[in-house]
Amino acid sequence: MNPAADHSPTLATKSDIASFLLREFPQTKCTVVDVGHRSATVRHAIGSAELRPGGTVSGPVLVAVADVALYVAILGEIGLVPLAVTTSLSINFLRKPAADAAIVGTCRLMKVGKSLIVGEVDLYSEGLEEPVAHAVGTYSVPPRPASDAA
Amino acid sequence: MNPAADHSPTLATKSDIASFLLREFPQTKCTVVDVGHRSATVRHAIGSAELRPGGTVSGPVLVAVADVALYVAILGEIGLVPLAVTTSLSINFLRKPAADAAIVGTCRLMKVGKSLIVGEVDLYSEGLEEPVAHAVGTYSVPPRPASDAA
Amino acid sequence: MNPAADHSPTLATKSDIASFLLREFPQTKCTVVDVGHRSATVRHAIGSAELRPGGTVSGPVLVAVADVALYVAILGEIGLVPLAVTTSLSINFLRKPAADAAIVGTCRLMKVGKSLIVGEVDLYSEGLEEPVAHAVGTYSVPPRPASDAA
Amino acid sequence: MNPAADHSPTLATKSDIASFLLREFPQTKCTVVDVGHRSATVRHAIGSAELRPGGTVSGPVLVAVADVALYVAILGEIGLVPLAVTTSLSINFLRKPAADAAIVGTCRLMKVGKSLIVGEVDLYSEGLEEPVAHAVGTYSVPPRPASDAA
Repeated sequence: MNPAADHSPTLATKSDIASFLLREFPQTKCTVVDVGHRSATVRHAIGSAELRPGGTVSGPVLVAVADVALYVAILGEIGLVPLAVTTSLSINFLRKPAADAAIVGTCRLMKVGKSLIVGEVDLYSEGLEEPVAHAVGTYSVPPRPASDAA
Repeated sequence: MNPAADHSPTLATKSDIASFLLREFPQTKCTVVDVGHRSATVRHAIGSAELRPGGTVSGPVLVAVADVALYVAILGEIGLVPLAVTTSLSINFLRKPAADAAIVGTCRLMKVGKSLIVGEVDLYSEGLEEPVAHAVGTYSVPPRPASDAA
Repeated sequence: MNPAADHSPTLATKSDIASFLLREFPQTKCTVVDVGHRSATVRHAIGSAELRPGGTVSGPVLVAVADVALYVAILGEIGLVPLAVTTSLSINFLRKPAADAAIVGTCRLMKVGKSLIVGEVDLYSEGLEEPVAHAVGTYSVPPRPASDAA
Repeated sequence: MNPAADHSPTLATKSDIASFLLREFPQTKCTVVDVGHRSATVRHAIGSAELRPGGTVSGPVLVAVADVALYVAILGEIGLVPLAVTTSLSINFLRKPAADAAIVGTCRLMKVGKSLIVGEVDLYSEGLEEPVAHAVGTYSVPPRPASDAA
């Protein structure tokens, strides 16, 4: 079996990842919607704690969703590795999020290297078509026994 | 008086800004330490709510401190403008923050333009010399009557 | 007619843009391959001038292709506006480019605002499937008479 | 001797680095002005080849200067390592550069880790006080025998 093949199963199931996420990020309000090949979707309910006056979802909440979406996609790709850490994250805020909709983040990994993984995340107000923000992040991961990585 | 001159006073005092911040970011735990010419320092106490397992301050907390440091420096520069919004933020995580120290963010504005303001923020675990993270952010600000901006 | 509608024609044709590009970026070696709705593809031939020892395409060449791809997509969207200027660009280098293949950049605009336009660019070694780099850039554009922009 | 100590000499002299740079980046027009502890200054003469219509130094030229400034600072810190490669670079363009002045880039390394080095670069039109651009870049470096790195 080649875990790097394009239609390979993820190395951890969605429910494995959801449990692991709760242990590693106990404060997160994100839930795992989907984990696929080099991809993941997560969702974060929005309530008054996440809003600024005027009904804007605060930037750090969007960053947190992007970070979790990347982490979930990485766990699906390389297994339940507790030592993956974010090394950089950049985000562009594109539109005002809806005050009454959850934030959904969809991640696509662009590079799965031996020690660095890079991915991008589109962030949406649930139900709307245009993204509210776009993030690119890099994780550093511990060396793995075997990989297609470069 | 020319508010753009290099030794001009800030357009809003530290205590004006602290009150304004509480209104605009009611959830923030950041306090304003200092506001200077094109600069600001803010502080965020760290407790169990901000830690991940292993005692790491979570990335989105560092982003939030960077964002507030930028906002405070901008308010000091252009006055209490409620419509300033973050358009982009990028952060590099440099070292593991201490689990038992506050996070301090010091911002320096690099460009104060008519519609865009760009600044950088060094983030520290209070009492340690080397930064734990470094951020660069851009705010979009509403047009102002008079300015040296470009 | 609404130039912002999803199936609208671009505001400038591919050949208009190619001529304009030669005037504005006389040093560029990029050619315009395609201009679509909020998108563009450009191509840059690679010769010894663009290679570093070891046969790597130099980073600034990839940046230049990303910048031109963004510019071409913007011209297609808002017309031949000479005053569009890059305000920020971030790039992640993902894989070693081929030494003997052109670089192709495909841009997708994520936000077309009144004064800021944000887009992303995938950069490829021509003929290969995985991107060699990924860039996100922001352009500042002069105010326009009518627009769907926010 | 501990090469990581705060007042240690650089691991390679300015003239070692200048020769090495010419070998590794034969096309670069940058010259090495200074190499210090976790820092470097480089200079790039500006002529008509680097200008766009209107007398603006092109963005990719500024990126190239930032990239070389980072590389030179890294060589000073870890020695003449040919396999250091840029993994990411982000730049904010702050002011229009002068058409008739060289570009000077001053780099400060913020993290010198085992495998990742992160630095920032201020870019100036020679003789002017305010920076024309600011960049942050990350290099991946091959493992080294001994280091204070994390």
